Amino acid sequence: MLKSYGYAAYNPLTPLRAFQFERREPGPRDVLIDILYCGVCHSDLHQARNEWNGSSFPIVPGHEIVGKVAAVGGAVSDFRPGDSVGVGCMVDACRTCPDCLDHQEQFCENAVFTYNSPDAHTGKMTYGGYSNQIVVDQDFVLRLSPALDLAATAPLLCAGITTYSPLRRWRIGAGHRVGIVGLGGLGHMGLKFAKAFGAETVLFTTSPDKTADAKRLGADDVVVSKDPQAMSRYLKRFDFILNTVAAAHDLDQYLALLKRDGVMCLVGVPEKPHPAPNIGNLIFQRRALAGSLIGGIRETQEMLDFCAERGIVSDIELIPMAGINDAYQRMLKSDVKYRFVIDMATLAPAR
Amino acid sequence: MLKSYGYAAYNPLTPLRAFQFERREPGPRDVLIDILYCGVCHSDLHQARNEWNGSSFPIVPGHEIVGKVAAVGGAVSDFRPGDSVGVGCMVDACRTCPDCLDHQEQFCENAVFTYNSPDAHTGKMTYGGYSNQIVVDQDFVLRLSPALDLAATAPLLCAGITTYSPLRRWRIGAGHRVGIVGLGGLGHMGLKFAKAFGAETVLFTTSPDKTADAKRLGADDVVVSKDPQAMSRYLKRFDFILNTVAAAHDLDQYLALLKRDGVMCLVGVPEKPHPAPNIGNLIFQRRALAGSLIGGIRETQEMLDFCAERGIVSDIELIPMAGINDAYQRMLKSDVKYRFVIDMATLAPAR
Repeated sequence: MLKSYGYAAYNPLTPLRAFQFERREPGPRDVLIDILYCGVCHSDLHQARNEWNGSSFPIVPGHEIVGKVAAVGGAVSDFRPGDSVGVGCMVDACRTCPDCLDHQEQFCENAVFTYNSPDAHTGKMTYGGYSNQIVVDQDFVLRLSPALDLAATAPLLCAGITTYSPLRRWRIGAGHRVGIVGLGGLGHMGLKFAKAFGAETVLFTTSPDKTADAKRLGADDVVVSKDPQAMSRYLKRFDFILNTVAAAHDLDQYLALLKRDGVMCLVGVPEKPHPAPNIGNLIFQRRALAGSLIGGIRETQEMLDFCAERGIVSDIELIPMAGINDAYQRMLKSDVKYRFVIDMATLAPAR
Repeated sequence: MLKSYGYAAYNPLTPLRAFQFERREPGPRDVLIDILYCGVCHSDLHQARNEWNGSSFPIVPGHEIVGKVAAVGGAVSDFRPGDSVGVGCMVDACRTCPDCLDHQEQFCENAVFTYNSPDAHTGKMTYGGYSNQIVVDQDFVLRLSPALDLAATAPLLCAGITTYSPLRRWRIGAGHRVGIVGLGGLGHMGLKFAKAFGAETVLFTTSPDKTADAKRLGADDVVVSKDPQAMSRYLKRFDFILNTVAAAHDLDQYLALLKRDGVMCLVGVPEKPHPAPNIGNLIFQRRALAGSLIGGIRETQEMLDFCAERGIVSDIELIPMAGINDAYQRMLKSDVKYRFVIDMATLAPAR
């Protein structure tokens, strides 16, 4: 076993702190990755605090992992030591079910998630990217372009694919008007992608002070959602709305902005349910309310290649590992532009 | 003006009774239709009792109209006296908006509905099919096959197109498993169409005693939705669910039956809202909740032609005009298999 170290939540209540653990020895199909950066997703916080229940402690969060290949197994042909690589929300899946065969491993009933997921190799739970290294089957390792800033690439592995996938699935492009609800880690990536795909893009936010930033990030217009007049100007004017807000809120105010046959896709699960939508808003304009969940490995690679081609990365704030607890506090106040990324060089080796 | 007669609700509380009124003289583009049969839609009852508000009294309901052409205007080329024709929920629209140009007149903001809609020709409200005759612009008159039973054809004009349109829009066919929720006027047509399109079709009902009838109507299986075990056998197994139930109910129990990427389409607006659906049911299987509203004139004609080709009509109970108030009482108890149709030969001429 490989002695590894990182930061873990030992229970739902106390701050994260140093943790030592073991990873499996790389097998023939495995890639050993030295982790350089790890993005901080809101779901890390949820699970560190057991807000979704089902957290197994100690828990090492982190599923926006970027690093360099340190070693590869004998059956690995696509990666070599020194390569820049990424790992997202999954590290394995059954590979034989209809979801896997359809390259949608995120829906596989036996998908192994990057942390807090039963790990057949060790008999324990998987440990995530708030750590010095990780061992991952080659089929779940993503190739990164050396042209991109590696730290700013990390959030693409979750926030990026979560917004890229629905925009691609609904074939968003030139001639479409797209709304992005919320300017956080997901929303700012949704904005960049919708714009890169050629759509006219409008950002909805509750914070008037985000207007300038949203325009810098590509929004053609910014609407403060608390302003009924500004909202009413966009009645029945959107082809697609990507709603990244996970807090419970009024869905009807956005459904009403969709054209006939328009779709609003939700990518955040609220802790408390959204108020029931008015079904008339669906029927009388033949609209749909949909959901989307990250993306499969093939599509994640496609997204990373697209980002490399277009020079798209996240806007990040680099923090030291020891700053994670402060970062969680700031995330709760939405005080982040737009994703914290941990610089793993700051992770002190195990004593 | 043409002296006409029919049955009207004079106010929301008293039974419908005889009513005399005037229709416009047919213009050059108009078709004068002697009404033979008119289906009884639940929305007739809602509007007769002003349950949606906005009813203007006296109100003559009826938008599932079947009859014979009595006369045509000089500019009418497609219809001749004696032709069997139908009129559905609309009698006019602006013809210039994007919805009209896209043959989706039901979404036109200036659509004129068959009853209780402002009528530019008379300055009053439109009067529906519980009457002896109607004058309709040729573009909103549907051609009926003489091969079909005319009385049983009437419900196709609303119940038929309301279920045909979403099944076509989501391209239902062989290889699909389709659920139909509710076996009423809409549900029994949904069942017939899903089956005719080649899908494996499962009927969901709260009434175990509808099982035999549902199978006779084409269901490959019938599930009593109050039986959790029967429901759980179909978890994640449907490509599409057409939900025809307008009463508030738990949507999650049906969303959970959809495969990944499956769609549940609602065609009934409940008086009290459905409980808020669990958004996780959308996100974690990338499902969608959608709505659909009748269909455009072109698609309605396509549906009627399809029915003629396949011999599809509604299962009806023919009633005399004077029986309408009893029929409403029975509809409230779901005591109808599966649509009341008024035999207009029983309508006594005005005194």
